[in-house]
Amino acid sequence: MKRTEIAELYSKKAELGGKTVTVCGWVRTIRDSKALGFIELNDGSCFKGVQIVFESDKIPNFTEVAKLNVGSAVVVTGELLLTPEAKQPFEIHAAQVEVEGQSTPDYPLQKKRHSLEYLRTIAHLRPRTNTFSAAFRIRSAAAYAIHKFFNENDFVYVHTPLITGSDCEGAGEMFSVTTLDADNPPRTESGAVDYSQDFFQKHTSLTVSGQLEAECMAMAFGKVYTFGPTFRAEKSYTQRHAAEFWMIEPEIAFADLQDNMKLAEAMIKFVIRYVMETCPDDIAFFNQFVDKGLVDRLQNVIDSDFARVTYTEAIEILKKNNDQFEYKVDWGTDLQTEHEKYLTEKVYGKPVFVTDYPKEIKAFYMRMNDDGKTVAAVDLLVPGIGEIIGGSQREERMDVLLQRMKDFHLEEENYWWYLDLRRYGGTKHAGYGLGFERLVMYLTGIANIRDVLPFPRTTGTAEF
Amino acid sequence: MKRTEIAELYSKKAELGGKTVTVCGWVRTIRDSKALGFIELNDGSCFKGVQIVFESDKIPNFTEVAKLNVGSAVVVTGELLLTPEAKQPFEIHAAQVEVEGQSTPDYPLQKKRHSLEYLRTIAHLRPRTNTFSAAFRIRSAAAYAIHKFFNENDFVYVHTPLITGSDCEGAGEMFSVTTLDADNPPRTESGAVDYSQDFFQKHTSLTVSGQLEAECMAMAFGKVYTFGPTFRAEKSYTQRHAAEFWMIEPEIAFADLQDNMKLAEAMIKFVIRYVMETCPDDIAFFNQFVDKGLVDRLQNVIDSDFARVTYTEAIEILKKNNDQFEYKVDWGTDLQTEHEKYLTEKVYGKPVFVTDYPKEIKAFYMRMNDDGKTVAAVDLLVPGIGEIIGGSQREERMDVLLQRMKDFHLEEENYWWYLDLRRYGGTKHAGYGLGFERLVMYLTGIANIRDVLPFPRTTGTAEF
Repeated sequence: MKRTEIAELYSKKAELGGKTVTVCGWVRTIRDSKALGFIELNDGSCFKGVQIVFESDKIPNFTEVAKLNVGSAVVVTGELLLTPEAKQPFEIHAAQVEVEGQSTPDYPLQKKRHSLEYLRTIAHLRPRTNTFSAAFRIRSAAAYAIHKFFNENDFVYVHTPLITGSDCEGAGEMFSVTTLDADNPPRTESGAVDYSQDFFQKHTSLTVSGQLEAECMAMAFGKVYTFGPTFRAEKSYTQRHAAEFWMIEPEIAFADLQDNMKLAEAMIKFVIRYVMETCPDDIAFFNQFVDKGLVDRLQNVIDSDFARVTYTEAIEILKKNNDQFEYKVDWGTDLQTEHEKYLTEKVYGKPVFVTDYPKEIKAFYMRMNDDGKTVAAVDLLVPGIGEIIGGSQREERMDVLLQRMKDFHLEEENYWWYLDLRRYGGTKHAGYGLGFERLVMYLTGIANIRDVLPFPRTTGTAEF
Repeated sequence: MKRTEIAELYSKKAELGGKTVTVCGWVRTIRDSKALGFIELNDGSCFKGVQIVFESDKIPNFTEVAKLNVGSAVVVTGELLLTPEAKQPFEIHAAQVEVEGQSTPDYPLQKKRHSLEYLRTIAHLRPRTNTFSAAFRIRSAAAYAIHKFFNENDFVYVHTPLITGSDCEGAGEMFSVTTLDADNPPRTESGAVDYSQDFFQKHTSLTVSGQLEAECMAMAFGKVYTFGPTFRAEKSYTQRHAAEFWMIEPEIAFADLQDNMKLAEAMIKFVIRYVMETCPDDIAFFNQFVDKGLVDRLQNVIDSDFARVTYTEAIEILKKNNDQFEYKVDWGTDLQTEHEKYLTEKVYGKPVFVTDYPKEIKAFYMRMNDDGKTVAAVDLLVPGIGEIIGGSQREERMDVLLQRMKDFHLEEENYWWYLDLRRYGGTKHAGYGLGFERLVMYLTGIANIRDVLPFPRTTGTAEF
């Protein structure tokens, strides 16, 4: 038996029409009259399924097949009959239907529509629905597009560690990682938990960012990126935050904030274009059933020259419209999602880079501008979602960096290796972070991060 | 300034010869006489560097440049002069040398050779050496090759969770993940640590495998793979074990052990071929300085039809040579590295799949063979290293699986979702796991796993 995937039936239908093919998949719907039945079969290779026609005088196990429950797995061999006048371009007339795996009448995914909340409780089965099949195919395509983009641009992919001995950038609450007995940990003479007896001989946590390690690699390879899991232990019940998520963090040497923005713009456009070309049916589904403006919005991003505005200019624009905001802005305040969306949707109608934020609201490693008040930070805001990328030029000047670390009450000795990068051939450099789930949400119109992660980990939830 | 990377100088030298170019990089070596100096400049874009010639009558800051320490970062603009008669195909005659970042005389990477042990203590700088520059470029290329292979074969890339609520396959010791106060955790009335107050409202750990979740996805998409970090909390000081490493786990539906082996063979050959084509200089370096047989061994893998032998046959072969082994084999014993290497190096002289192991020494989810004694497991052994891949056909029959879980003392209710896959349209399926670091060791000849991970986490060590 040579299996043909349903995606291939569509891409090679001219060639395969009239031929005998074997398809393997799961029954989405099934109906029959006395001597004739129809199965809508899906195999996950593409959004679309294929209709199987089975007849009592063609297959010996007609009764068995006709009784199949939704969700059953079957192997069907038959002629691919082109049907140019019908809605579907072809169907398969079964010469043989082998029941590979039964299902039952209590299969949770019956034809009726299920709520996303319910489907989260059966995360092991929900990829068999249209919505999640499409979402995870797009997630996969987007991940590949990220790798392809950076590979074509000669970046080195680096795996930065997840278990870390230090809370490097103070970007958020961290999970502890330990092999100590929680019930009765070893203690030092003074009674403190004795982490010298822990697996790594010190207290360790799950990382919140691979940036500092990526900077080490950029100082050797020039252009690097990470793409790996990241963690936040903040208790959060929003639609936008997960405790475990994937992040992309490019870092480029001999580069400033302008180069950083050029890279981010090129990457975003590349990924959107790739996904639209690779997953047109999946995108069309989301455009029709989840987010009517999706295709227009994505196309607009591809076609736009992203706008650029400084934080200070942005605040001037926003202040004039403070009456429209729940949180009023003034110079020095951080931008909320309402402000970000106003800027990118109402003011510019396209993606916009906001640069040069007040130093007080950004991280210690961002490069101080000459005004002494702002740092060379950049956020990319996109219509429909707000911030999707955050980055900066990094402070390469040792004296300025040391002063910033003092301001942030960071211990110099914990960052000896990070400071070494400035001691030995430091260069201008810059980078950014892209939350991968936020990108997938943007590509699909899905509103809840729990629905773009195969098995989401959020506050209070680590099922499956 | 338009920067040209050194890799591009090599790939476009015919076109760039005689032109003015700007290169940015780090000084590997520098020497000068009165009015003339030479810099070996490397920018990490490829293994090779470029020689910079600078002269006192051409650049105004000759004295400054001549005094530069190794490791300094410079931006050089000058003419690319082709030197077809010299060892290097070209050099750059500097018209301008901008010092981007100073180094110091105590820069740890002076020209002398350093031990790998010492370089591990400066993991933030070691990517600037030949060995680690080549190793991490190969690591990056191999990672891309993995994605490219599965993408070209229409697999869906899935991100399985790292934080897990269950020790699913008992594959090893696990790290606990927690936000509880280690010094004074909340307690239940009975005095036990109260995990209901932990972040996920239960005890959680770092995963040892994404396989069970990947099986869920394979039952929707047909062909999926994971590529992500995995953890083992076993105390181990060997050269082959890290506490945090990356693993690739494909899972295919409507597929048996034969399909699994076909996939593994195709993948291994694809990745080796890709890396040899993409990183010839890096491979040549390892072949010359680290492992003289490297290229021959890799080429042999590409050119071979992998052998296939059952465990039972392999034991017969090995038993005849038991006098050569530290651990004597008999039917029922697990194979040690010495046996694996004997089989693949001495008996076959090429990669060999060993299949159908005794059920007692393999995991509960592996499919029971008709003999009732062995399971449809497969290990791929390769010359020079032994086992590189372990996989199996999965048990799809509910009754057999339940019995196996009983034998392994696994609680049914912890696997309700895994069992659902057999309740609802289960199919024959199979998959395997490939330790990515072991693959990179194989591709480079590097003997210690600490030297193929950018910032290794091993027993007692989580620096940087």
